[in-house]
Amino acid sequence: MALIVQKYGGTSVGDTDRIRHVAARIKAAREAGHRLVVVVSARAGVTNELIARAKAVNPRPDTREMDMLLAVGEQETIALTAMALHALGVPAVSYTGPQAGILTDLIHTKAKITNIVPTALRRDLTAGKVVIVAGFQGVNQHGQITTLGRGGSDLTAIALAAALQADKCEIYTDVDGVYTADPRQVQDARKLDEISYDEMLELASQGSKVMQSRSVEFAKKYGVVFEVRSSFNHHPGTIVKEEVSYMEKVVVRGVAVDKDQAKVVISHLPDKPGSAAAVLRALADAAINVDMIVQNVGHHGVASLTFTVPKDDAPRAVEVLPAIFKKLGGGEVAAYDNIAKLSAVGVGMRTHAGVAAQMFEALAEHRVNIELISTSEIKITLAVPRDRADDAQRAVHAAFGLAKTE
Amino acid sequence: MALIVQKYGGTSVGDTDRIRHVAARIKAAREAGHRLVVVVSARAGVTNELIARAKAVNPRPDTREMDMLLAVGEQETIALTAMALHALGVPAVSYTGPQAGILTDLIHTKAKITNIVPTALRRDLTAGKVVIVAGFQGVNQHGQITTLGRGGSDLTAIALAAALQADKCEIYTDVDGVYTADPRQVQDARKLDEISYDEMLELASQGSKVMQSRSVEFAKKYGVVFEVRSSFNHHPGTIVKEEVSYMEKVVVRGVAVDKDQAKVVISHLPDKPGSAAAVLRALADAAINVDMIVQNVGHHGVASLTFTVPKDDAPRAVEVLPAIFKKLGGGEVAAYDNIAKLSAVGVGMRTHAGVAAQMFEALAEHRVNIELISTSEIKITLAVPRDRADDAQRAVHAAFGLAKTE
Repeated sequence: MALIVQKYGGTSVGDTDRIRHVAARIKAAREAGHRLVVVVSARAGVTNELIARAKAVNPRPDTREMDMLLAVGEQETIALTAMALHALGVPAVSYTGPQAGILTDLIHTKAKITNIVPTALRRDLTAGKVVIVAGFQGVNQHGQITTLGRGGSDLTAIALAAALQADKCEIYTDVDGVYTADPRQVQDARKLDEISYDEMLELASQGSKVMQSRSVEFAKKYGVVFEVRSSFNHHPGTIVKEEVSYMEKVVVRGVAVDKDQAKVVISHLPDKPGSAAAVLRALADAAINVDMIVQNVGHHGVASLTFTVPKDDAPRAVEVLPAIFKKLGGGEVAAYDNIAKLSAVGVGMRTHAGVAAQMFEALAEHRVNIELISTSEIKITLAVPRDRADDAQRAVHAAFGLAKTE
Repeated sequence: MALIVQKYGGTSVGDTDRIRHVAARIKAAREAGHRLVVVVSARAGVTNELIARAKAVNPRPDTREMDMLLAVGEQETIALTAMALHALGVPAVSYTGPQAGILTDLIHTKAKITNIVPTALRRDLTAGKVVIVAGFQGVNQHGQITTLGRGGSDLTAIALAAALQADKCEIYTDVDGVYTADPRQVQDARKLDEISYDEMLELASQGSKVMQSRSVEFAKKYGVVFEVRSSFNHHPGTIVKEEVSYMEKVVVRGVAVDKDQAKVVISHLPDKPGSAAAVLRALADAAINVDMIVQNVGHHGVASLTFTVPKDDAPRAVEVLPAIFKKLGGGEVAAYDNIAKLSAVGVGMRTHAGVAAQMFEALAEHRVNIELISTSEIKITLAVPRDRADDAQRAVHAAFGLAKTE
């Protein structure tokens, strides 16, 4: 009798029909002899509605109150899911994040899980009940509701799987699994049967929308093997697990594009030790995520620094930097928000040479300009003009032989 | 610096504009130098939407899960109200019922408050914050969310006023206060400046929609003086308080009509001790509220029993009684659902004679048939044909000189 943690995302529980459908899936898994912990998200759209109402009363809502507000989305779904299971004759009980013993730090809207105390959950599992847990939320040491930020429900599921030492963790979503590229952009993209944590991480960090990095990191840290699969059909999904040797035979596992990027160019920076550090510190303090940093050291005592940031952060970067320039005695900043990042990811890159060259050749052939380059052990990322990103992705996908017909 | 508990009902916080309006009222009260605890309901309509979703997944939803579901309505409003106050520069913090220390018994969907532990509230009040509390909800000894049933938010406000020994309790709603009669039915109905708990209770139990009896009972028990007033204007409302001697000068304080009534007639009941008791016990076991009971003792060894019940309960009364008749050895039942109850209420009745006579004369003059009569110390209730109820109310209202022009 295996213990399975299932997680159903917002589209999987998007309305009462979908919730009844999910209940039927849960019932089937239970009748196959499994014990079940089910994590659910808010109905698709609810979180955005709540945010819109918050903005209507306050353009910059307090984060504690935002958590109080957003937590209602999942609380509604857990109750409805438990009721739908009761209607099918399945004993079930719902838990909010705080009730489930999901303890977090104090950072509202982006809380980290610090501990899980699943005493009540264990009791109900032993009693033969399906346990339904609200994703995305927890409680801090002051008894205040916190939320875990984007992808928080996946994190709840994976953390519960670790805490309960579950036999299996299934992340149900509206796609069939992890693909070699976004199937909406690349028609012959292929679903992967397996992927390593590291590959999944690099894809997630590079714009693949399947899962947020933090959940994958958590799974890697605690060795939680999980499957990403669809709640809309019964196809097997993609299993995300520790790297195994045969994975290295494939050089590139997949490609990803992130179009919500901007390029920030800082010029006329005094060429002295600490200049770049001061700039990056100022951006970090403003909670701006900087990526693909390139530093060109000085002509005539000045240097330049170029990097990418999420598009929405670009205006703030331009806003906060002049104060630093003043301290440093020089500097100019300009932002260009017509940038996309294109990444190729695969653990096989560790043992295969020439991947970058092959990627450059494919883009040169399609006359795509490369603006910035950054590489890691298992990933190559290129900044390209946004309007050329889709073409670039298809070219790279084909160049590495990732298509279905392979 | 007075401590005021304010409660805003569903229409008062019906949308984000209304919530901002309420925030402005709270700010004004704070700037007048008061400390404030504000209880809010769910936005009007939200509770019904949630119930509809519950019914869509399960026609008979579990009460524990129902509480889990319904509690989200108020949780949304407290967060939005706190945010709206922040936007006006007012420090505010929201609390769910459980967080506010509202402890209840175990009866889901109709929980009773057993204790209030307002430690956190007191701390935030001392820190100068406006405290926003979710009405209608609490927590039981197992840490599960409970709801207080109809009128629960009023109860939260009055119970908090008692627990915090507040100087004032203001119940904001969509009417200006308590009237001598329903102003929609009786054009010259007059708003009352004051009313006693007992009068308010009798009016509430007789169909006046302003407040549920249980909140008034709670206020009476703990001596909480409260004011019912409108959040849509700045008119003074009606103060509900302990009876004082001058109240007796007014014989009838107000009249109320309840049209959702049926008359149940039981005939051919064996005229022996215990027959009526057996019938009433059977109805009580079926959770049917019986009122205005009249027993006509026997001709030829049989008796009859007539009473009123809420209209919706009449079919069930007709259904459960034949089993009892069988045990008793006789009995027939018939229900007539074209009945309304008309009540006149006033503590002055205790010291004034002839009130019933005056009421009967007014109805005779308007040719309204009286089907049943029941009296208490401060109330006379008559069952009348439903289609004559409005005329009857106006006649009695005029006969006792309750009109505006008085």
